[in-house]
Amino acid sequence: MGVSKRTVELMKRYSWFADATEGRRALEEKLGADGVIDLSLGNPHVDPPREFRSALVDVVEDDPEGAHRYMSNAGFMEAREAVAEQASRDRGAEIPPECVLMMYGASGAANVVIKALVDKGDEIIVVSPHVPEYPLYVDNHGAVPVAAPADDDFLPDLDAMNRAITPNTRAVLINSPNNPTGRIYPEPVLRALCVLLQYKERDFRNAIYLISDERYRNAAYDGVKVGDVLQMHANSVVLGSFSKELAVGAERVGYMLLNPRCDYRQDLMMACATLIRTLGFVNAPAIMQRVVTKLEGVTANLDVYRENRNALCDALEKYGYKFIRPEGGFYAFVESPVSDEAMFMKLLEDEGIVAVPGSAFGRSGYFRLAFCVDPRTVERALPGLKRAIERAKD
Amino acid sequence: MGVSKRTVELMKRYSWFADATEGRRALEEKLGADGVIDLSLGNPHVDPPREFRSALVDVVEDDPEGAHRYMSNAGFMEAREAVAEQASRDRGAEIPPECVLMMYGASGAANVVIKALVDKGDEIIVVSPHVPEYPLYVDNHGAVPVAAPADDDFLPDLDAMNRAITPNTRAVLINSPNNPTGRIYPEPVLRALCVLLQYKERDFRNAIYLISDERYRNAAYDGVKVGDVLQMHANSVVLGSFSKELAVGAERVGYMLLNPRCDYRQDLMMACATLIRTLGFVNAPAIMQRVVTKLEGVTANLDVYRENRNALCDALEKYGYKFIRPEGGFYAFVESPVSDEAMFMKLLEDEGIVAVPGSAFGRSGYFRLAFCVDPRTVERALPGLKRAIERAKD
Repeated sequence: MGVSKRTVELMKRYSWFADATEGRRALEEKLGADGVIDLSLGNPHVDPPREFRSALVDVVEDDPEGAHRYMSNAGFMEAREAVAEQASRDRGAEIPPECVLMMYGASGAANVVIKALVDKGDEIIVVSPHVPEYPLYVDNHGAVPVAAPADDDFLPDLDAMNRAITPNTRAVLINSPNNPTGRIYPEPVLRALCVLLQYKERDFRNAIYLISDERYRNAAYDGVKVGDVLQMHANSVVLGSFSKELAVGAERVGYMLLNPRCDYRQDLMMACATLIRTLGFVNAPAIMQRVVTKLEGVTANLDVYRENRNALCDALEKYGYKFIRPEGGFYAFVESPVSDEAMFMKLLEDEGIVAVPGSAFGRSGYFRLAFCVDPRTVERALPGLKRAIERAKD
Repeated sequence: MGVSKRTVELMKRYSWFADATEGRRALEEKLGADGVIDLSLGNPHVDPPREFRSALVDVVEDDPEGAHRYMSNAGFMEAREAVAEQASRDRGAEIPPECVLMMYGASGAANVVIKALVDKGDEIIVVSPHVPEYPLYVDNHGAVPVAAPADDDFLPDLDAMNRAITPNTRAVLINSPNNPTGRIYPEPVLRALCVLLQYKERDFRNAIYLISDERYRNAAYDGVKVGDVLQMHANSVVLGSFSKELAVGAERVGYMLLNPRCDYRQDLMMACATLIRTLGFVNAPAIMQRVVTKLEGVTANLDVYRENRNALCDALEKYGYKFIRPEGGFYAFVESPVSDEAMFMKLLEDEGIVAVPGSAFGRSGYFRLAFCVDPRTVERALPGLKRAIERAKD
């Protein structure tokens, strides 16, 4: 055997990713690269904002002595201060820089905080449909991912959550604005979830962390507000990232906000700063920490995505697709017009369109379309999307 | 409980790191920041080479469309090609770019390949003394770290290795030039180790990987050559990094070379490219991949460290310390003049000197001095090192 049994198993569970890549490659061979309409990946298409580019040039030209040496595992104090200031302003509550850790993206942050919290066999609850990697992050650290199905509106279902929480539950991992559904969890839903967690904490005499992955926080459209879990639940942690808001996913700079009111903040801070090192992350890239320090409040032009959403969703409605219009994020999660979503993926592929089947997100009978693409790509996709549903209904 | 029991346990095992940081902080309070002589960390002091700076400026000024978007998990093909070409030239054997994965530093690479290879309870052998994090990397993925003590010359001891290998052994992890000892494993020792692994592979009908961490490969002094395990053992993997040779540790760019002759190369390549994503690393920072593409064969001024080694080791010899003169790397591993190394650390602290006790590396009775520092820091350390051994002998 070349790789471990567990890895073979994981590759199977994660095969949608290879399949999407493989599907795109096969399509490219058939249709040429320009013929493929790729709506599969959350790879922001807009370029970083002008301010990013000039901050990067400044940082590179300045390049003081020691700029590329290891810093404290928690990150440069300047970067932590900038993130803390921005978060405090955004949330209307004081987040001190001591509660901020600079991280290798929100995905790195997720792995670090999960590792800090779990012993073997502990449970972490994810709301399904969920980011495909969430259960794998939990499994990486020997814990058990437990899916609590969302309700019909793709919001956390408190009954399901109530049933899912056990004395082994260490954390609930949520994501709003959501991938894949585009839902933004309304403040009352978040509050109710937090009240439930506090009851369970009391019942089980256990901290139950709320880990809120807010990497799409700035991609909230039409003025819908993203609630602040830090004010609702003391044992809470926010995962953030500049990947989406600055359109620099491949530069890997994110952060973690620990709730200043968290019972065990010092322990958690020390643990995360140590684990980031022992997991091999060591620190968020120095150059990007220096860049984001200069970019408080700057975002890429996310209007493009709102326009894309409008164009895509207006058309999907007209064609007869069923879905909830995404309020934020980069994706629409659409009901498959035929019950076998794999069959519908084939119909889309016939039109040169690559999407991701709902099963990748733990919810079959659906598929995800990414609209963080060139507006022309949305436009080019529409005729194919129309034909595919027509053929499905034949 | 705030963090998991396992994390509390890990923090204890890793306490030398907090202790060194804490020790330095306490000393700084007593002596002022300038009074502290920090020989504890492998944080390269020399600045990156001129070529790094100009490549970085070029990359930032060029900044083509999509430069900061996710690329394939294995990295930009241009970066993989540049690393492959350099490795092929360096090793006198053809390494195709398909065998190169761009990684988040050698530490990230170690975690990815270990995760790919192990099922729960599998064993990975490390030669002790070893990099403090090695057993933690193994433990991260549910495998068991097994220490095979080095011989008196700090070289792999084949008898100890023979005893350590069991049917559960998935890999042997070595490091040359070595941290903490500075030894470069001679080619005959590497060959003998590889022959042993091949016998064991045959006996146990199991691939046993040799993972060779060569992050200090370019820090080999006095013309000592670092052997090429890729030519000696088919099931081998090299971990490399630009952290040390370009003095850019905090930018996190490294790579993995899979042996083109490896039995399961395709599987391992696929697994590593997938696991880097599911572990949260996603990709090596895009900007640094583009920079290193332009820097084949360029290194920082490592002569400074050779000079530092000479100045430090000449003096240590004169003062009566016992140690093997490091042939490469950034460290000298020195016998404690008193059997209780912790007591000797205190004597060093009295002189304002921070070092790391041997127990952090799995070998007590020693301490490690890092000489990847400003030459003035070595100079300033010498009187204190002299007084400390004199006091120890009183």
